[in-house]
Amino acid sequence: MLRSHHCGALSESDLNQEVTLAGWVQKVRNKGFIVWVDLRDRYGITQLVFDEKRTPEAVFKKSAELGREDVIQIKGTVIERESKNPNLPTGGIEILATELTLLNKAQTPPFTIENQTDGGDELRMQFRYLDLRRNPVRENLIHRHRVTMAVRNFLSQAGFIDVETPYLIKSTPEGARDFIVPSRMNNGQFYALPQSPQTFKQLLMVGGFDKYFQIVKCFRDEDLRADRQPEFTQIDCEMSFVEQEDVLSQFEALIKHLLSEIKGVELSEFPRITYAEAMEKYGNDKPDIRFGMIFGNLNEVAKGKGFNVFDSQELIVGIAVPGGANYTRKEIDNWIDWVKRPQVGAKGLVWVKCNQDGSYKSSVDKFFNQQDLGEWAKVTNAQAGDLIFVMAGDTLDTQAQLSALRMEVAQQMDLRNADEFAALWVTDFPLLEWDEETQRYHAMHHPFTAPKNEYLELLETNPEKVLANAYDLVLNGNEVGGGSIRIHDTQLQEKMFSLLGFSETEAKEQFGFLMDAFQYGAPPHGGIALGLDRLVALLGGSETIRDFIAFPKNNHGRDVMIDAPANVTDDQLEELYLKSLPKDPS
Amino acid sequence: MLRSHHCGALSESDLNQEVTLAGWVQKVRNKGFIVWVDLRDRYGITQLVFDEKRTPEAVFKKSAELGREDVIQIKGTVIERESKNPNLPTGGIEILATELTLLNKAQTPPFTIENQTDGGDELRMQFRYLDLRRNPVRENLIHRHRVTMAVRNFLSQAGFIDVETPYLIKSTPEGARDFIVPSRMNNGQFYALPQSPQTFKQLLMVGGFDKYFQIVKCFRDEDLRADRQPEFTQIDCEMSFVEQEDVLSQFEALIKHLLSEIKGVELSEFPRITYAEAMEKYGNDKPDIRFGMIFGNLNEVAKGKGFNVFDSQELIVGIAVPGGANYTRKEIDNWIDWVKRPQVGAKGLVWVKCNQDGSYKSSVDKFFNQQDLGEWAKVTNAQAGDLIFVMAGDTLDTQAQLSALRMEVAQQMDLRNADEFAALWVTDFPLLEWDEETQRYHAMHHPFTAPKNEYLELLETNPEKVLANAYDLVLNGNEVGGGSIRIHDTQLQEKMFSLLGFSETEAKEQFGFLMDAFQYGAPPHGGIALGLDRLVALLGGSETIRDFIAFPKNNHGRDVMIDAPANVTDDQLEELYLKSLPKDPS
Repeated sequence: MLRSHHCGALSESDLNQEVTLAGWVQKVRNKGFIVWVDLRDRYGITQLVFDEKRTPEAVFKKSAELGREDVIQIKGTVIERESKNPNLPTGGIEILATELTLLNKAQTPPFTIENQTDGGDELRMQFRYLDLRRNPVRENLIHRHRVTMAVRNFLSQAGFIDVETPYLIKSTPEGARDFIVPSRMNNGQFYALPQSPQTFKQLLMVGGFDKYFQIVKCFRDEDLRADRQPEFTQIDCEMSFVEQEDVLSQFEALIKHLLSEIKGVELSEFPRITYAEAMEKYGNDKPDIRFGMIFGNLNEVAKGKGFNVFDSQELIVGIAVPGGANYTRKEIDNWIDWVKRPQVGAKGLVWVKCNQDGSYKSSVDKFFNQQDLGEWAKVTNAQAGDLIFVMAGDTLDTQAQLSALRMEVAQQMDLRNADEFAALWVTDFPLLEWDEETQRYHAMHHPFTAPKNEYLELLETNPEKVLANAYDLVLNGNEVGGGSIRIHDTQLQEKMFSLLGFSETEAKEQFGFLMDAFQYGAPPHGGIALGLDRLVALLGGSETIRDFIAFPKNNHGRDVMIDAPANVTDDQLEELYLKSLPKDPS
Repeated sequence: MLRSHHCGALSESDLNQEVTLAGWVQKVRNKGFIVWVDLRDRYGITQLVFDEKRTPEAVFKKSAELGREDVIQIKGTVIERESKNPNLPTGGIEILATELTLLNKAQTPPFTIENQTDGGDELRMQFRYLDLRRNPVRENLIHRHRVTMAVRNFLSQAGFIDVETPYLIKSTPEGARDFIVPSRMNNGQFYALPQSPQTFKQLLMVGGFDKYFQIVKCFRDEDLRADRQPEFTQIDCEMSFVEQEDVLSQFEALIKHLLSEIKGVELSEFPRITYAEAMEKYGNDKPDIRFGMIFGNLNEVAKGKGFNVFDSQELIVGIAVPGGANYTRKEIDNWIDWVKRPQVGAKGLVWVKCNQDGSYKSSVDKFFNQQDLGEWAKVTNAQAGDLIFVMAGDTLDTQAQLSALRMEVAQQMDLRNADEFAALWVTDFPLLEWDEETQRYHAMHHPFTAPKNEYLELLETNPEKVLANAYDLVLNGNEVGGGSIRIHDTQLQEKMFSLLGFSETEAKEQFGFLMDAFQYGAPPHGGIALGLDRLVALLGGSETIRDFIAFPKNNHGRDVMIDAPANVTDDQLEELYLKSLPKDPS
């Protein structure tokens, strides 16, 4: 071992000990006759002192030449510091150095290795190995390690078995786009990387494993929206002989355990709302419930008053911004501009100030009298001093737009506190959604999700009305997990594939093994998958998953540090019986 | 929950309880007036009884129609069994059924779901989900789960941080063949799946992580020898500021912990032998030391005695088979035939019987007298009653052939007891090996392995003489892990790449990021990777890794259950700017 102690270990109880330390030079302060060096490693910082009088001459001379990030080993004696630093565990001592070995000379790094660095995002990604030396980055990843260990131990103790499922599987067109892997031994054929181990975990249930979990990499070849990665990590779970309630209570317990273990936060029972209720109250199926501004439906009280803009609309809906009556006209105009941005896409915003004296002032005073506006205040639960924002239009668009406004207002009012946690379950999702473009149904969750028993008959007549045994776990306005009770019956699964537009041949070709498996005694089963990257980020007080991934890719799916993807040799392609085509110039 | 208890839970302390159970029908015994059903799940078997007199008529009737592997749910009362089965935890009770729900009717499975099944390998792989229902298969995978949990908790407690490294990386021609993944967003470019996270774990050390581990899938597109998988799992570790001794003692502690935790076996300090010694004593760098038959070098005592077959050979070497003097002439001839098989490739075998009376009888009595043969016995440590087998030829070939013989003799003599464990470290591997075919050096471990300091000068003059800071962990004659102290100096790494035949441009293109990283203060570091599949199998008392993988692939890299790899659509290939070429008819 090149050290007797690490750099966070020594304190006043170690005085006069002879020690050997190794680490990186964080800082050098050279006073001419004395040189102080901050030596850093993963565990902390220890101050070294090289003293003209007390340090051997050659060593002292060498110490003056040290530069930032040099890797050194020193021997010396633990002595008491003259001016102690109470903020540092090692702040009471320093090491009077007697030997100094330069283990590796460092070039000056392209950015400072400090909590607040001067390096931009791109530079930090290119030199990620240097970025990893910064405390906040390292702490994020140690936090990730703690979370995964807590998850594994919790699930293992709850009887779940960690089973590794294969990475080289088969491409299926349902869902997102697969990454594919040419097979050399099976010319012209390809493996696919899993988008999730869905079918394998269901087969494990057919195989009698009863409770399965895995923390597993999944892959989706999608155009990357902000903060999405082509490879991501999932806490994947499945249980047999369960109903929805069993899955919910098991994983509610897991999330509570994590919050308690990692954050010291004790949550009480998670609220549950249906998808329909979530859309109605928050315009969003992953509502942030740390704050109010619950949607009020104004259809009944705002239509038929001669305001044409409203009368023809499917939905008129508003929220009450607490204390918003103080907004200046300019501030309100800024919000109107904000909702008109193409990212939000609203046509405009009607507003009503609820004055302290009980009167109302609105942008539509011409059409609505005080009593009308009082009704609006009632429906949106607005108090004196609040500001009501109202939008109107098609239901889905308007809900999405007002939800965006609600989140942004909360953000600006600091209502989205990263240290406060609010989780909920959203249940009763529709089984299918109609896709206008392809003129067919898509599975809202995935094709293996079971419809609720009481809706089975509607599958024939009104498939879009069928609700599913599907549920999402929402934390602080982020979907951190989703799951369902699965179909375990061959006929129902066949019916489902046919609703989704699969021909019998296609269904058999792609999922024949699963439908075969169901014929040999599949138990009722269900499960959930939690997005580990997102969960770790939220528990770490952030919504940026990239900060919690050691070697993330950029928005073009590139690793700029190792410069991947890259060209391969012609020999490699030939062996795979592949040819690269020139890029279409169009 | 569809059950109140699982099928291994109930005993005589639960008498008269009303319970709900669910599971698979293992066996039905229908006596006409009474039907017994063995109900099975992951946790055990519980006997159900349907009695003409005591069970509702409709339920009784349904019970008579149950078939193997049907999935059912029953309600009933725990009653005492008349004839108890002391071998079963639930053997004192049975459930008098009052309700029966058929959850899923099963087709008759293609093989029996018993510990000893009538299903052949291929059938069992095709219906792996049914094979997984058999106790031995499920227990192997639960054993794997226990091993991985023990590894994770041990390493985490020892300060190692679990860091996920990326799966979509860059292809590098060094080492085995990569699986590659076409990138849609970067046309004409490819990711590669990692053969190991080697460079990333070294970058984590440069990033100051100090101690890293990961249980991670790795990929090699190699022609599959028996019991190799294209995707396999590695316990991957790296440590900073360490010397070889530190890595060895840390991972010796891990293996001891696993043996103690999983098998209840306490091992004392692992022997360490050099590569040279291993080859000399066992003809093999992964010797099984659970038994003797250590090689005796006969060069000095067997040359120059007029036996031409020996005189011209590089190596004459023998082993003493305990008790082998009793072998009949036919048995000895069988061994001679065995070593002549092409898989072994020896030309023949000289033998010497060490008779109980102290005399010797050999196949070369014409050339060697009793005193000569006495010398052979001394060198091979043969006792009265033993049989000495002797081979001669080129050193490497002869060592390999005699090692194969030694292992096979031990196998047939039942000296390779799966419940006995012997681990050792093999150290001081050569850094490089000369490849005649490509006329260049290959890295014996990998290009990042550090030469021993005392050999640095030989790198220029006699590279093949240089020993490396590399080590293998051997358990019961299997290499279960290997590692090394790494190069952490840019110049030495460049030197190494040049010895391995990389041009400066090639080295920069492929490993530029690593050499850049070394310039910013890389700490001395080293690590190890353990093959999890192999380790789990050995701890499970087997050498067949396939039995410890949930969904293994066959020797052609195929998953016969899901039928992968498979064709993909033309659209998929087009999007990737790829074209499949017809297979060369040659």
